[in-house]
Amino acid sequence: MNARPDTLSTTFAALADPTRRAILARLTRGPATVTELAAPFAMSGPAVSKHLRVLEHAGLIARGREAQWRPCQLRAGPLREVADWTAAYRRFWEGSFDRLDMYLGELQAKRRKTTGKEQRNARRKKQR
Amino acid sequence: MNARPDTLSTTFAALADPTRRAILARLTRGPATVTELAAPFAMSGPAVSKHLRVLEHAGLIARGREAQWRPCQLRAGPLREVADWTAAYRRFWEGSFDRLDMYLGELQAKRRKTTGKEQRNARRKKQR
Repeated sequence: MNARPDTLSTTFAALADPTRRAILARLTRGPATVTELAAPFAMSGPAVSKHLRVLEHAGLIARGREAQWRPCQLRAGPLREVADWTAAYRRFWEGSFDRLDMYLGELQAKRRKTTGKEQRNARRKKQR
Repeated sequence: MNARPDTLSTTFAALADPTRRAILARLTRGPATVTELAAPFAMSGPAVSKHLRVLEHAGLIARGREAQWRPCQLRAGPLREVADWTAAYRRFWEGSFDRLDMYLGELQAKRRKTTGKEQRNARRKKQR
């Protein structure tokens, strides 16, 4: 939707692919070449290179300058931004809001019960 | 790349848009209707609805069943998965790996210095 996506959008888009996440996971064990990164995947070199370009564009990896052996290295800075962004939602998955849901559910059930009672009472009045 | 994206990929793709993240931020203040959610954006109802469908598909929001007033509610479960996934990379942004970078940088600088010295020595030997 944006001509120039913001940093966080670029990071999320780069992470929205299991192969790219697997590449990042591999790089936690140390720098690796394109050939080494391609090995676990049934994927052509160019296909892996394309993924690497997306990761590099998002600042999630850095690549060496050597023309032939350009080792890739993990850059975790953008992941810190993801963690910071996610932290704002922690309280929503840590139970308190599930309890609110339960409370609202109980309220609705009570209302339904009351409404049912009122309807029965109304019917009784009519029958009298 | 996958016909059926995995949960985490679907979540990341849904989060890769600033409008969708703004909608989630708004929902931390409580449920809201499409009209209420559309208000802060210069965006048509259908455009907002499209974003809501993406968020709903990713399980990040739930919508009420009432046909006319379908309030949206935040569902933070998928964000917990994002936080868990990100946590594995925490040690990479918490300094220890920056220190490794610094160390490698120093090593390279030393090597360059040594190489320079060797070259000067070689020149001196030639001149003698």
